[in-house]
Amino acid sequence: MKRYKRGLYVGRFQPFHKGHLQVIKRILEEVEELIIVIGSSQISHELDNPFTAGERIAMVRRALTEEGVDASRYYLIPVPDTNMHSIWVNIVISLTPPFEVVYSNSPLTRRLFEEAGFEVKSVPLFLREVYSATEIRRRMLADEPWEDLVPKGVAEIIAEVRGVERLKALAKSDKAPP
Amino acid sequence: MKRYKRGLYVGRFQPFHKGHLQVIKRILEEVEELIIVIGSSQISHELDNPFTAGERIAMVRRALTEEGVDASRYYLIPVPDTNMHSIWVNIVISLTPPFEVVYSNSPLTRRLFEEAGFEVKSVPLFLREVYSATEIRRRMLADEPWEDLVPKGVAEIIAEVRGVERLKALAKSDKAPP
Amino acid sequence: MKRYKRGLYVGRFQPFHKGHLQVIKRILEEVEELIIVIGSSQISHELDNPFTAGERIAMVRRALTEEGVDASRYYLIPVPDTNMHSIWVNIVISLTPPFEVVYSNSPLTRRLFEEAGFEVKSVPLFLREVYSATEIRRRMLADEPWEDLVPKGVAEIIAEVRGVERLKALAKSDKAPP
Amino acid sequence: MKRYKRGLYVGRFQPFHKGHLQVIKRILEEVEELIIVIGSSQISHELDNPFTAGERIAMVRRALTEEGVDASRYYLIPVPDTNMHSIWVNIVISLTPPFEVVYSNSPLTRRLFEEAGFEVKSVPLFLREVYSATEIRRRMLADEPWEDLVPKGVAEIIAEVRGVERLKALAKSDKAPP
Amino acid sequence: MKRYKRGLYVGRFQPFHKGHLQVIKRILEEVEELIIVIGSSQISHELDNPFTAGERIAMVRRALTEEGVDASRYYLIPVPDTNMHSIWVNIVISLTPPFEVVYSNSPLTRRLFEEAGFEVKSVPLFLREVYSATEIRRRMLADEPWEDLVPKGVAEIIAEVRGVERLKALAKSDKAPP
Amino acid sequence: MKRYKRGLYVGRFQPFHKGHLQVIKRILEEVEELIIVIGSSQISHELDNPFTAGERIAMVRRALTEEGVDASRYYLIPVPDTNMHSIWVNIVISLTPPFEVVYSNSPLTRRLFEEAGFEVKSVPLFLREVYSATEIRRRMLADEPWEDLVPKGVAEIIAEVRGVERLKALAKSDKAPP
Repeated sequence: MKRYKRGLYVGRFQPFHKGHLQVIKRILEEVEELIIVIGSSQISHELDNPFTAGERIAMVRRALTEEGVDASRYYLIPVPDTNMHSIWVNIVISLTPPFEVVYSNSPLTRRLFEEAGFEVKSVPLFLREVYSATEIRRRMLADEPWEDLVPKGVAEIIAEVRGVERLKALAKSDKAPP
Repeated sequence: MKRYKRGLYVGRFQPFHKGHLQVIKRILEEVEELIIVIGSSQISHELDNPFTAGERIAMVRRALTEEGVDASRYYLIPVPDTNMHSIWVNIVISLTPPFEVVYSNSPLTRRLFEEAGFEVKSVPLFLREVYSATEIRRRMLADEPWEDLVPKGVAEIIAEVRGVERLKALAKSDKAPP
Repeated sequence: MKRYKRGLYVGRFQPFHKGHLQVIKRILEEVEELIIVIGSSQISHELDNPFTAGERIAMVRRALTEEGVDASRYYLIPVPDTNMHSIWVNIVISLTPPFEVVYSNSPLTRRLFEEAGFEVKSVPLFLREVYSATEIRRRMLADEPWEDLVPKGVAEIIAEVRGVERLKALAKSDKAPP
Repeated sequence: MKRYKRGLYVGRFQPFHKGHLQVIKRILEEVEELIIVIGSSQISHELDNPFTAGERIAMVRRALTEEGVDASRYYLIPVPDTNMHSIWVNIVISLTPPFEVVYSNSPLTRRLFEEAGFEVKSVPLFLREVYSATEIRRRMLADEPWEDLVPKGVAEIIAEVRGVERLKALAKSDKAPP
Repeated sequence: MKRYKRGLYVGRFQPFHKGHLQVIKRILEEVEELIIVIGSSQISHELDNPFTAGERIAMVRRALTEEGVDASRYYLIPVPDTNMHSIWVNIVISLTPPFEVVYSNSPLTRRLFEEAGFEVKSVPLFLREVYSATEIRRRMLADEPWEDLVPKGVAEIIAEVRGVERLKALAKSDKAPP
Repeated sequence: MKRYKRGLYVGRFQPFHKGHLQVIKRILEEVEELIIVIGSSQISHELDNPFTAGERIAMVRRALTEEGVDASRYYLIPVPDTNMHSIWVNIVISLTPPFEVVYSNSPLTRRLFEEAGFEVKSVPLFLREVYSATEIRRRMLADEPWEDLVPKGVAEIIAEVRGVERLKALAKSDKAPP
């Protein structure tokens, strides 16, 4: 029951977790191809956004490959923020193959694509309280177990880039003379 | 008793309301021509800044025309913010005809023009508690009557661009997996 | 025989000349309101682009007022270039009231608006060899008469901002040790 | 005889042609995974750069899929130019998974990656005189056959986006009053 | 016991105070030359960042000269912020002579330089509660004595640029119709 | 016969040569302090602009130190280009201590500072045909002797950063499939 040729899904993936994975698998039941936009691609090394776009791309790819999702079914495209919301949709369009439907729960993303004439669909949520990037970052800082909330390959990549160490370093309070 | 050849007045006009209108009419008693700067022109689709610069230009033009203000008496010029405050005045100067006096109550705007050697005058306030863009946006979200606070033409334009619908859409909380 | 509610016309106006004026008067026969975009608004102080956007806005306004064109029939809006052509139309849309038809002979401008779904019309040319900004700047540098090619008010403004002096200063070859 | 875990190859792909395809297949013999960077991703709608990054991504994907290249073996990542050459390599690093070797014949690209400490290898050329994006664009404008120089799927995409029509529109000389 | 040829120290210096001065003198015991980076160089005219980069450069130079520090031992280089943290270190590298060691207590600065492979050292703090730019700005606004917390030449420069007047002007609440 | 408290001199210094050195020594006879602006600070790794701002700062410092010029007499401040000429002077003002006089032979630089109300003076030229950065880069590429045209310390720094190798690498023609 494929209905759409190509859909678009936007996330920040700080980090990519099992909730994101479920969403993508569900969307792939409705579309032939899915463009996965790595949003806020210019941001990294912040407490709420520790990972670079390249690291996030590696996470999504490894998680989907582990899960047996054929890489020819999706695109992984980093898109930066712009300070002019009214043109952001056009930046997305310019950086991606054509798409017909947008999957998002973000009010701003939904509104911008709706005003541009796109069909916009909500995405189902999976155990939203735990499958949450905010919760995962909190656990990392608190030395609580977080690995179960992300696909195995994502935990490996976070280890490879020493992501928890980075997050903890960024969380130190600044004792420097300002 | 015209004293100035050309004055400058900066506003964000999110949206343009009757207080702005009174200010402009008062200033036009002191200047031959008035440059009305649509500030933060790059911003739209935010809860505090829902309208595009183009929509705000249309609002001001229609309101002033309704009021019988001759369009040859004023200029409507969008000016973006810059992340470098010290050059903002020069961006304004570059985008506008020459002016002698600046009307503003904003501490930053006043200071920047004063340091650049301009005469800066305060603007009188008209029923500031109700003629307030913040109050108008609050009423829009609360489904309270707001149309009386803006000129008739502004309410029409907000209806044409479905502005209240946009504001409410932006106000929805995000249920998306972050 | 008004057919369009609002049209858009883009020019650099370096400087505004009688050919531009004829074009605008002709378009105003077809549209109720005309948005006149001051293109490349960030550029000035170059041999091919000597005037600031503010100076160009002043030129167009004074020329149209002299000609008896009602200022409520047009908007004068500066729009900067972008290094990403594919979003330029959306920047224009964001900075202007809504429009239905675009008047341009520029291949790039025409193509961008056509791909965005706008109707695009050509503009008639008036004595193109002499009513040309390039020719006017050449005459200014060569101390040949140029004032006849521009509306009287434009020549006044160029005198007020000492535009010929600026152009000649920019044309001097650089003798500095590079 | 896989020697590298991950390599990087930069191209503008305006459009993607059979020479590019041969290069990628050759590199894939040496690396496990290849990051294909869509360079100058912000540029489109120019005579030398007619296609958007999104269109170019679609071209490369379809061509590689046709050729039977497993999509899990490569990444397709758009990277914009920067006006500061000295940080371009770091932008690439930030937007891509980690890589060990760079394939390029561009003097600037080679030098920048060498100064950053990367191993840089040349790429073999395949019938460079005909498998050339410049030659393909020339043929498109001259109504000469060009389809044989690109993979079949690329010709399809160029037809879908009406690329030749776009190129010809951009090539028209501007008759507008400047 | 000179150990390093060239070190780097980053500060915002809003304003430069005696704590900064002590830090620099201490670092100069360990390095032959010190690059003093004026951070967030694009920011001024904010309550937390009142001074321009040029004013801050003048402060540091005058304070070090008063103290008898040979100007050939240090560089004063303004560096702007970037919205992409991952390339900020490379911007610093591009704008400064080569250095081997970085002195900072800022978690973000430390982490970014560590990930780039630099040795990073903490700086000792001197009476941190009073030798604090935040405390100095607070005193300026409260008309409490602050001059003792900064080198004599810094107080002079703040007087020359009428810095306290600027800070107080920026602190006024905005009574303008928003 | 010191007449000015502080002057400003702008150069690109690609590379810094003996002509620049003579100019600076001559200006220092007229001013107490000289601000030396490293222009186009964002540009490097181009055939006409091979060196980073940091490398150029190191060159000027070492050359002036060799010559016995007291480092407290001058500032070395990198300033980037802007695409908006009309605000460039204000960027310079924001990044530098206050100055009264500008030394330049560049028509654009002279005009911009004159329009901003500064006194602008020409600089004397010293053997302009050979003390030329263009000539030095030409000799580097042609393996002709160039070291005599630059101060000894500059030749050392160019050797340290392997500048001639960089220039030659950038000059190779691109054999890559475009």
